[in-house]
Amino acid sequence: MKNILQREIPETLEGIGEIEPFQGAFTKLRKGWMEEETVPPPNKAKMPHSSKMCSNLKEAVIRTNPRNGMTVSFHHHLRGGDSILVETIKILAELGIKDITLASSSLTSAHEPILPYLKNGTITQIYSSGIRGEIGEAVAKGVMPKPFVIHSHGGRVRSVHTGKIKIDLTVIAASAADIEGNSTGAHGPSAFGSMGYAVIDARYARQVVVVTDNIVDYPCVPQAVTQNFVDYVVKVDSIGDPSKIAGGTTRITKAPMDLQIARLAAQVIEHSGELKEGFSFQVGAGGASLAVAKYIRKIMKQKVIKGSFILGGVTSYGVDMLNEGLFKSIFDVQSFDAAVSTSLMTNPYHIEITAGLYANPFNCGCMTNKLDIVVLGALEIDTDFNVNVITGSEGYVRGASGGHSDTASGANLTVVVCPSFRGRIPIVKEKVHTIVTPGESIDVLVTERGICVNPNRPELKENLIKGGIAVKEIKDLAAEVEKITGVAKPIQNEERIVGIVEYRDGTVIDVIRQVK
Amino acid sequence: MKNILQREIPETLEGIGEIEPFQGAFTKLRKGWMEEETVPPPNKAKMPHSSKMCSNLKEAVIRTNPRNGMTVSFHHHLRGGDSILVETIKILAELGIKDITLASSSLTSAHEPILPYLKNGTITQIYSSGIRGEIGEAVAKGVMPKPFVIHSHGGRVRSVHTGKIKIDLTVIAASAADIEGNSTGAHGPSAFGSMGYAVIDARYARQVVVVTDNIVDYPCVPQAVTQNFVDYVVKVDSIGDPSKIAGGTTRITKAPMDLQIARLAAQVIEHSGELKEGFSFQVGAGGASLAVAKYIRKIMKQKVIKGSFILGGVTSYGVDMLNEGLFKSIFDVQSFDAAVSTSLMTNPYHIEITAGLYANPFNCGCMTNKLDIVVLGALEIDTDFNVNVITGSEGYVRGASGGHSDTASGANLTVVVCPSFRGRIPIVKEKVHTIVTPGESIDVLVTERGICVNPNRPELKENLIKGGIAVKEIKDLAAEVEKITGVAKPIQNEERIVGIVEYRDGTVIDVIRQVK
Repeated sequence: MKNILQREIPETLEGIGEIEPFQGAFTKLRKGWMEEETVPPPNKAKMPHSSKMCSNLKEAVIRTNPRNGMTVSFHHHLRGGDSILVETIKILAELGIKDITLASSSLTSAHEPILPYLKNGTITQIYSSGIRGEIGEAVAKGVMPKPFVIHSHGGRVRSVHTGKIKIDLTVIAASAADIEGNSTGAHGPSAFGSMGYAVIDARYARQVVVVTDNIVDYPCVPQAVTQNFVDYVVKVDSIGDPSKIAGGTTRITKAPMDLQIARLAAQVIEHSGELKEGFSFQVGAGGASLAVAKYIRKIMKQKVIKGSFILGGVTSYGVDMLNEGLFKSIFDVQSFDAAVSTSLMTNPYHIEITAGLYANPFNCGCMTNKLDIVVLGALEIDTDFNVNVITGSEGYVRGASGGHSDTASGANLTVVVCPSFRGRIPIVKEKVHTIVTPGESIDVLVTERGICVNPNRPELKENLIKGGIAVKEIKDLAAEVEKITGVAKPIQNEERIVGIVEYRDGTVIDVIRQVK
Repeated sequence: MKNILQREIPETLEGIGEIEPFQGAFTKLRKGWMEEETVPPPNKAKMPHSSKMCSNLKEAVIRTNPRNGMTVSFHHHLRGGDSILVETIKILAELGIKDITLASSSLTSAHEPILPYLKNGTITQIYSSGIRGEIGEAVAKGVMPKPFVIHSHGGRVRSVHTGKIKIDLTVIAASAADIEGNSTGAHGPSAFGSMGYAVIDARYARQVVVVTDNIVDYPCVPQAVTQNFVDYVVKVDSIGDPSKIAGGTTRITKAPMDLQIARLAAQVIEHSGELKEGFSFQVGAGGASLAVAKYIRKIMKQKVIKGSFILGGVTSYGVDMLNEGLFKSIFDVQSFDAAVSTSLMTNPYHIEITAGLYANPFNCGCMTNKLDIVVLGALEIDTDFNVNVITGSEGYVRGASGGHSDTASGANLTVVVCPSFRGRIPIVKEKVHTIVTPGESIDVLVTERGICVNPNRPELKENLIKGGIAVKEIKDLAAEVEKITGVAKPIQNEERIVGIVEYRDGTVIDVIRQVK
């Protein structure tokens, strides 16, 4: 069958089951109350004054009674510095556990040592927001028996709530914790800020282990995860490489083209009609996206506009804007550097939020639903504005769905910033290899070679033209790019589906086929 | 059948269903994982940028589609000043809704205007931690068709988790909220401090309405309840009578007998072996209980002992001890005066906790499980140390289970303080009218007429004797009291059971029969 974006989707898939095709960003919501039932969180019980402390991670893992076919989950707040995921998988492999589903909120290059376990039946399926590097190449080449599932940050929470992901064991790395498992990422030698992605796992996992390199006096404050959800606590020497966990202040790009695109994007936002008193704002951390904040900050000061909240993955650049009074508050599901952790600790208007509050579509109103302006990147964008942020030009998995489709669906103004091509590879093109975010959620594309407005936003196009901004048809831009780069060689695929891309509501927006 | 405390309990009861008899404080826990399943919290969905604001409470109630047989819940943080519960019930009655189960975390004298609705079929069942005044008299006299259920604070959370209480609509009064429903009790003209009892309702209710007299700029900070759980928000002129919500500083009793009992209790604690560096502490807010804190504070200063945490219903006396550095932190499920709200707002070590974290027996470790010393009151205590805190000498319901059995079961040292008799009515006696907390959880009784140690704590008795404290057999004390007061006239009951007292694990520890 084909979904509404004309992507060929099977009705069922081994290792996944029945597949519901993507029907549009809000079709399931418009039906009213979601019909899919949620699953009950586990009941647990402990005798008073019993100890949760284990002498090492292996002991904790053994005490949780691991078994074949289990699902193990992790958060990715330690980013490129994480060592806990790999250590846990190694322990499970040593114990002879097979057929594990790995459900990390994302995967980074730090996790490449698990590669052998993808090949030998230890890990047979992955649920993740992102996959990169050698793992991304291996899974695209079909190394695993069951299809991997790419979900958005909000979609992951929905999956846990509805039992699509049934977590048997979650191992939560914390930069500070007490002996009962009250824990935080906001302070300690390995501080990483918000622990927003871990909270849903703590609530639903059959067994919850907190691992820290920093046991503090009871009680640990603040408490991102509280003791009533924690079964075991482990003190280890290190939860990872702090230099890769919090890499210092996130710097604005100096690449001239990124800066040019960012400047254009800021002009687009300025004239969009959305940059007004009390607006809310999210930008990605990388390349041109973060640079947009630099120009928006200038405009806000010039025009004396004060915003409501900054959302998302938070950089110290956002913290600066909070401290300058440009925004009233920050909602922080993930913090990108050490300065952010300090702000999170000390400023009551720098609010740590869970991934569910951030982006789960099926609750009474996630934060992304209240967002006015978001600036996002793209690996590819097609002439219907569909965006690929997951597969690279060779067809390997090398990105993350993250909050892309979550924020794009909720924001009043979704701006995609990217160069029109990279090297000889077109970015703006007729058909993207993989769709993560549907074009209906993208309002405007800003490239160095032109600005294109989604035809479903005619009033936005008018605003921009009134503001003196030249607007181009996206088909024209794509044709222009093709003239420069030539027609891109299509990626050679096998028929076999090795992964699916789940939209935030649980429907399937695209599949990923095995790369030849 | 008889439960383990020899109370006559029916196997089934109309309006309740099957009854599981009380088997001992930890029998269900010792079985390992609790077998009772929990229920799934609801899935909800809202379109982005949609409004939750209703122009008045009636509009909000109508939008939640009320129906016959529904369960409506409330928190009791507004105490004697609450007007929201009564207003909501009046609206439902006006709408012709019948057969309502009222599931308030507790009921106070402020709720007496609902009395007509108990008699006319509007409200047919009550779940509550406490019932008092005219309502307590009416329900004991059998005014309602279905038996009421008395639960502990921790037991209530368990009941909601396991679906024994299925909340259709919860109406949450807040002293500050924003238009999305992020809300708190910590500031505003009607500030009441912690909102700890409301959080479980917000998570599980099919419909959640936040009512406030104080809409603040988005976002409301701090956030006891977050927007992802809130369906509707209502601004009203008043949520109640602020003078009865936060009644100023809670004062220590000046009654000589209470002070005498409190002094004795402090001596008992001093020599118990539990008053040591890092101990944790909870006292009730009333009479002799709070006065014990005064003497403990002195001893802590003299002996230079620093405690870990204060737990519970928190008074400004507790806040003073925190500020003096006598304790490291306060965990606050319920705040008793305005000074407490200010501390909660400003001191990161004054931590707002949910009722689940406070006392639910079926999670990974509630706070009461970590408690070292608790001082509790009693309406009656029998020679097996079983305590009644729910029915008065006429048999009417005039108290609250509250956290009594929760803290008593978890604390290393549970001290009951009460006079041995009041007027001509014995308090210490052979058999109490209603058991709320089993004797096995009570370690020592302190009265003006003698101190009695539970025989299951021989080492405690030794410690006290070593400390020069005279210890009496409880049977001797009861006999002594009987000589003074004469034998109390037994309460005249009908056979009909009008209410049950649930132990925190969901078993039935006692029943309440209709008073003649």
